[in-house]
Amino acid sequence: MSIHSVKRECANLVFDNSIPPALHVKSGSEITFDCIDASNGQITADSTVETLSTINMALFNPVNGPVFVDGAQPGDTLQVDVLRIENPEWGWTGLFPGFGLLADEFTEPGLKIWKLGEGFAWFDEKKGIKVPLRPFAGEMGVAQKTKGPFSTIPPYHTGGNIDTKHITVGSTLFLPVEVEGGLFSIGDGHAAQGDGEVCGSAIETAMKITVRLSVRKDKPYTKTPHFSTVTEPEGEFYCTTGVDSDMREATRSAVRNMIEFLGAEFGLGRVDAYILCSVAGDLRMHEVVDMPNYVIGMMMPTSVLGSLNKA
Amino acid sequence: MSIHSVKRECANLVFDNSIPPALHVKSGSEITFDCIDASNGQITADSTVETLSTINMALFNPVNGPVFVDGAQPGDTLQVDVLRIENPEWGWTGLFPGFGLLADEFTEPGLKIWKLGEGFAWFDEKKGIKVPLRPFAGEMGVAQKTKGPFSTIPPYHTGGNIDTKHITVGSTLFLPVEVEGGLFSIGDGHAAQGDGEVCGSAIETAMKITVRLSVRKDKPYTKTPHFSTVTEPEGEFYCTTGVDSDMREATRSAVRNMIEFLGAEFGLGRVDAYILCSVAGDLRMHEVVDMPNYVIGMMMPTSVLGSLNKA
Repeated sequence: MSIHSVKRECANLVFDNSIPPALHVKSGSEITFDCIDASNGQITADSTVETLSTINMALFNPVNGPVFVDGAQPGDTLQVDVLRIENPEWGWTGLFPGFGLLADEFTEPGLKIWKLGEGFAWFDEKKGIKVPLRPFAGEMGVAQKTKGPFSTIPPYHTGGNIDTKHITVGSTLFLPVEVEGGLFSIGDGHAAQGDGEVCGSAIETAMKITVRLSVRKDKPYTKTPHFSTVTEPEGEFYCTTGVDSDMREATRSAVRNMIEFLGAEFGLGRVDAYILCSVAGDLRMHEVVDMPNYVIGMMMPTSVLGSLNKA
Repeated sequence: MSIHSVKRECANLVFDNSIPPALHVKSGSEITFDCIDASNGQITADSTVETLSTINMALFNPVNGPVFVDGAQPGDTLQVDVLRIENPEWGWTGLFPGFGLLADEFTEPGLKIWKLGEGFAWFDEKKGIKVPLRPFAGEMGVAQKTKGPFSTIPPYHTGGNIDTKHITVGSTLFLPVEVEGGLFSIGDGHAAQGDGEVCGSAIETAMKITVRLSVRKDKPYTKTPHFSTVTEPEGEFYCTTGVDSDMREATRSAVRNMIEFLGAEFGLGRVDAYILCSVAGDLRMHEVVDMPNYVIGMMMPTSVLGSLNKA
């Protein structure tokens, strides 16, 4: 049990630095968030595809918070350690007309209800098709310095709907602090998702999730979400992201940010760092549907970086 | 030892369906290719960055072949099983002005010479930074039905410079046959590369590589390179690619091709297949530098697909 908790009803549909904090905590605190699913409870385990025609998408993607972390100042980095996720019991995946990478080719709504458990979900039991579960929160972000509301649908350089499947239990997310206290929010539980989230939704689910929030003064190069993983099937990674409305620019930003990270933490020259990205770093498309912004990741295996890794 | 071999001098700088075959083989034959490196021997283990100012990039990326496979007809699929690669001894990575994802930000030439061996290469021994080696051929492709020469620099829907790090020993590549015999060529040895090859080159090396070429009549949906892996650290995958001059369209094509594959091989409806891509398939950027075309992959873990996988 965490000492701190944010209740389900402490939720917002925007990031806005004028929203009063739901909670004040010290750096290093653990907080449990009780997050409703991305449909804001409008889709239930009994829903059918007909349900989709009556739901209000303006209510989608609530995030719980914001949490004010004492000592967090603009220019700092907020470290988010994902500690625990309660196993969700059911989830849904929806196709919403106008949304998704192939929206023009899939014009009809679609809905799949999943029963979750035992580490996987059956997609088609007869055919033996099943999806491994790796729960994570699709939304994790802090408030921007710019005044006014920012919809929770797109991801930003400050995080938000980054829909990054790798930030599961055991992983750590780093976000650039732009306002005093950081004002962290979280939501959009996903039981499983591929890199890209191509149809526009994952296995969407309500989620109780516990994270530790810590202020870092020693990572001034964090200008977009960075993350480190320890639980990947393929090993451990340190990852930099690019978030941009142009896919290629998002890709370039992800690489540029890794070059800066390798310079700051390992003392690599820019050319050397660029070469290392080319021969050992992997570009993966974390999210390509939450318009107008794409999230592209440059993932560097930490095994490459040797014992000097101190991120 | 393979019975068949293609010598180093049987190489071309274009794919062109009018080039006479270097070799005719039966379907199922193993062939060993002796490929020079992508610089066509202009960069040696003694080269320095000054070497780059005098080399002729018009000679870059020779491919060995073409090999005519008996029975391959337009509409068929050519299966390329990667069987063996002789361990290369040294390699190079270069930055060439005007080339690479961040070409505008890296305007000076750069060169790194690598000593290879023991499964990894030191990037910086003092700092403990080393790159694991996973050799593969950056170029594998067949001739297009369109007459005329096609430079070996860009990748095409028929393969070529796809620079896909996952197609290493144990993996299988599938290419769409467009002309009688297929006319397969191979080259551009890479000792290691990340997804994206962001600086424009990998650990480039000469390479002796042995593949088995087989005609498949049962994969008519192969319209771009597909591949299956068995040796990934993270498990096995079946992958479809998209090749396009627009990064987002290449991404969309990769997903579209996976949906078609899942329909053809597993009988999945289009909506179901799209959902499965979203929750279990990973979008990775295999190659983002061989202009004008990008190669994006939709990688589906074969563990998801169960026992019905027959690709």
